[in-house]
Amino acid sequence: MWNMKRLLIDKKGKRQLVEEGQDLHTHGGVIKEQDLRKIKYSGLVETHLGKNFFVLKPNIVDFIEKMQKRAQIVYPKDAALIIGLTGISSGSRVLEAGSGVGGLTLMLANAVMPVGVVYSYEIRKEHLKEAQEHLKEGGLDKFVKFKNKDVSKGISEKDLDAVVLDMAEPWLVSGQAAKALRFGGFLVSYSPSIEQTKKFVSSLPTSFQDVNTVESLVREWEVTSQRCRPKTRMIAHTGFITFARKLQD
Amino acid sequence: MWNMKRLLIDKKGKRQLVEEGQDLHTHGGVIKEQDLRKIKYSGLVETHLGKNFFVLKPNIVDFIEKMQKRAQIVYPKDAALIIGLTGISSGSRVLEAGSGVGGLTLMLANAVMPVGVVYSYEIRKEHLKEAQEHLKEGGLDKFVKFKNKDVSKGISEKDLDAVVLDMAEPWLVSGQAAKALRFGGFLVSYSPSIEQTKKFVSSLPTSFQDVNTVESLVREWEVTSQRCRPKTRMIAHTGFITFARKLQD
Amino acid sequence: MWNMKRLLIDKKGKRQLVEEGQDLHTHGGVIKEQDLRKIKYSGLVETHLGKNFFVLKPNIVDFIEKMQKRAQIVYPKDAALIIGLTGISSGSRVLEAGSGVGGLTLMLANAVMPVGVVYSYEIRKEHLKEAQEHLKEGGLDKFVKFKNKDVSKGISEKDLDAVVLDMAEPWLVSGQAAKALRFGGFLVSYSPSIEQTKKFVSSLPTSFQDVNTVESLVREWEVTSQRCRPKTRMIAHTGFITFARKLQD
Amino acid sequence: MWNMKRLLIDKKGKRQLVEEGQDLHTHGGVIKEQDLRKIKYSGLVETHLGKNFFVLKPNIVDFIEKMQKRAQIVYPKDAALIIGLTGISSGSRVLEAGSGVGGLTLMLANAVMPVGVVYSYEIRKEHLKEAQEHLKEGGLDKFVKFKNKDVSKGISEKDLDAVVLDMAEPWLVSGQAAKALRFGGFLVSYSPSIEQTKKFVSSLPTSFQDVNTVESLVREWEVTSQRCRPKTRMIAHTGFITFARKLQD
Repeated sequence: MWNMKRLLIDKKGKRQLVEEGQDLHTHGGVIKEQDLRKIKYSGLVETHLGKNFFVLKPNIVDFIEKMQKRAQIVYPKDAALIIGLTGISSGSRVLEAGSGVGGLTLMLANAVMPVGVVYSYEIRKEHLKEAQEHLKEGGLDKFVKFKNKDVSKGISEKDLDAVVLDMAEPWLVSGQAAKALRFGGFLVSYSPSIEQTKKFVSSLPTSFQDVNTVESLVREWEVTSQRCRPKTRMIAHTGFITFARKLQD
Repeated sequence: MWNMKRLLIDKKGKRQLVEEGQDLHTHGGVIKEQDLRKIKYSGLVETHLGKNFFVLKPNIVDFIEKMQKRAQIVYPKDAALIIGLTGISSGSRVLEAGSGVGGLTLMLANAVMPVGVVYSYEIRKEHLKEAQEHLKEGGLDKFVKFKNKDVSKGISEKDLDAVVLDMAEPWLVSGQAAKALRFGGFLVSYSPSIEQTKKFVSSLPTSFQDVNTVESLVREWEVTSQRCRPKTRMIAHTGFITFARKLQD
Repeated sequence: MWNMKRLLIDKKGKRQLVEEGQDLHTHGGVIKEQDLRKIKYSGLVETHLGKNFFVLKPNIVDFIEKMQKRAQIVYPKDAALIIGLTGISSGSRVLEAGSGVGGLTLMLANAVMPVGVVYSYEIRKEHLKEAQEHLKEGGLDKFVKFKNKDVSKGISEKDLDAVVLDMAEPWLVSGQAAKALRFGGFLVSYSPSIEQTKKFVSSLPTSFQDVNTVESLVREWEVTSQRCRPKTRMIAHTGFITFARKLQD
Repeated sequence: MWNMKRLLIDKKGKRQLVEEGQDLHTHGGVIKEQDLRKIKYSGLVETHLGKNFFVLKPNIVDFIEKMQKRAQIVYPKDAALIIGLTGISSGSRVLEAGSGVGGLTLMLANAVMPVGVVYSYEIRKEHLKEAQEHLKEGGLDKFVKFKNKDVSKGISEKDLDAVVLDMAEPWLVSGQAAKALRFGGFLVSYSPSIEQTKKFVSSLPTSFQDVNTVESLVREWEVTSQRCRPKTRMIAHTGFITFARKLQD
């Protein structure tokens, strides 16, 4: 479980997730358990090599950022927008396809807990396994029902609040999603290319209205007492997000 | 309570919130209670003047969008980013200042319910009253403790997961926020101007590290089977959002 | 000729182009010729109704901005990028299609004068006529050879420095442009939609290499001694600009 | 002179500027003079090691892009916007400060030639020398008058069409620029930070009106017959550009 982990942040902002235990082994030396106990497991500590780290319990975004190094996942900025604009919250019943390695699944599970559920479909067994491990590690596995099924072949759930698609061919799912959603529920698709976005929008049955495609750009700034300016480089593209709402049968 | 309301969307996407009751009175005529009963209160209905509306229960963003017409509030896209990147979720204990008319309060309450709490400080009594009404209308009032107090004079809460500032002088609160937050908790400030952002960043005590200022741009696209292109106009600026994390005492 | 016109700018930045003559007739009253003579036809003057205007000779962008009110033309920001990144300058020989009402033509003519030439193709006679009038009005007509011909049917010019397309079906011209350009010359296409852009890129013969599609976003800021912030709204999209370079036969 | 150089572009778009001569020495082997003669010095050739290059005469932007590797210069996209929106063209008389290594100077000289002039002020002798060499190499030196003078101490030129500042303290020049410009002429300042921009805007005497600060973002797209999407990364910031116009004494 991820809250059994510790996040170490060095003075330059570089992060490292380490297993909690007696001593923490960092890339800058060992942090003694007795030193951690002194600071109550949170705050500034020094390794045996004299390097300083801030120690704290990671939150879900810290955890996802670590996953981002290893796999292509929906960025937290995009997951946040999907969750925020659809109103997904505690108690929501959400279907996601595919699971991928579980990045978006973690964000969704965190949003619907402790009384909602995420149904996460994935056909690739190795991804499913990885996603399951990440959710367990994140302590959110009990809010997710993983299914090793092809979502385009049928959705058994009914009256869902949202269906969120992060898959190569989202247009195969539009018809099924229309049946599975409640009135006013959202079908959301996240795709890197315009072609996927367009094919998805064209596939929507008339039960979906109020269709809106957006892209979200987050620009970082350098802000100091001396000067303010946007940072020189930024992520210029992650994906296009389409929101469609079920408004009739 | 807002889920006692109905959202009407016409074919052009124009929205209207109406009180639930026997008959719904719209800008395009009256919708008969018996017609609503037939469609189980969701779906496509016709007014006595022959105008078609989709009827559904509004979600939180529908509700906030209506508020946006009347007052300057934190945009849902920005509220979503704040909630998503700080990991605020069910069970979180969050302080917000000021309440304003309650737009951000609604989003925060929706994220922390049913087992968390939002402490919402506001010095202007008329705003506080309006915010309270909006939260009641939204059915989320029981997750918010409103306080008619100046947050810069002192925060009585401890071990907060996040402090979110939407106020003209956020720098007055940095010191108090440092004491009120738990380790790893976030202080977030939302300001329209660079000057406010800079003064806020400069005010942060050293207990805050990992400071990051961003702006979020959401660009809408026109996507049809004929052609894809970004819409001609967009909102180019709402506010700068600064995230700072409490990493030591 | 446009430098026979005067540009009037009021205190709020609102502009008006008026014919030079004895007295200037503005929407805020009459400016007397004798008052203009006193300020040597440039500077601050008062109308007989007491309204103040700055009077000056318009430059080419002032002139184009006035056209923008009446017709859809390539924005100066995009024309500037096309001219700047292809190195079009005095002496360049450039083909343009279609002429439209002459907005881009003016920018190109201004860049190639006094020793270059713009060949401007347009099939629609009424547009051609309007473009010709605008160029005459702008005093740049002698640097433009207008042709009432379908550019996709053949280009008689050779060794051109650049071919700039602002037309609905630019892909019809790729082959002709390859023959008409010199080595290292640029074929540039400006299109509002992704579909046009894609079809154009796909149409390029292998003699074109170094293909690059960009979009240019110009964001305005509000900068005062009190506060700095981007303006609330902006033009989010004008067109996609594709640059391709002739690098072999 | 730069048109005594050859630009080599390999199949991946990587560029190299080499001296023209009998044989061209590239990073991928030698290109024989006799092979160049066969293709008339432009087109596709093979080195003795079998690597293919496109050979062509560089244009001004190719030349500047090479400078960009070694020094911080105004980006061509920004220079293009400055030139385009002020209407600088053949015959214009423009003052620039400071020269830097001559990147913007090249763009300005290319725009004003063959009958205009760029007055380029620079206090740092080593920069001035480098700028002079670049202009000579670019064959545009006869359109530039370099001055090893502090522009804030006084400008001897009168009736200038534009004054373009790319310097750390542009506010020191506002007063001098007001005297040196003709009516309707532009004072333009390019600064990386908000602080510089604000201080410059605040320094403007009332003879300047119609002040406008913008930032230009150029986003590159990946466009193939398979898919279209913005490239993942982009330059998020170069500088803020302020345009001010002299409208009265």
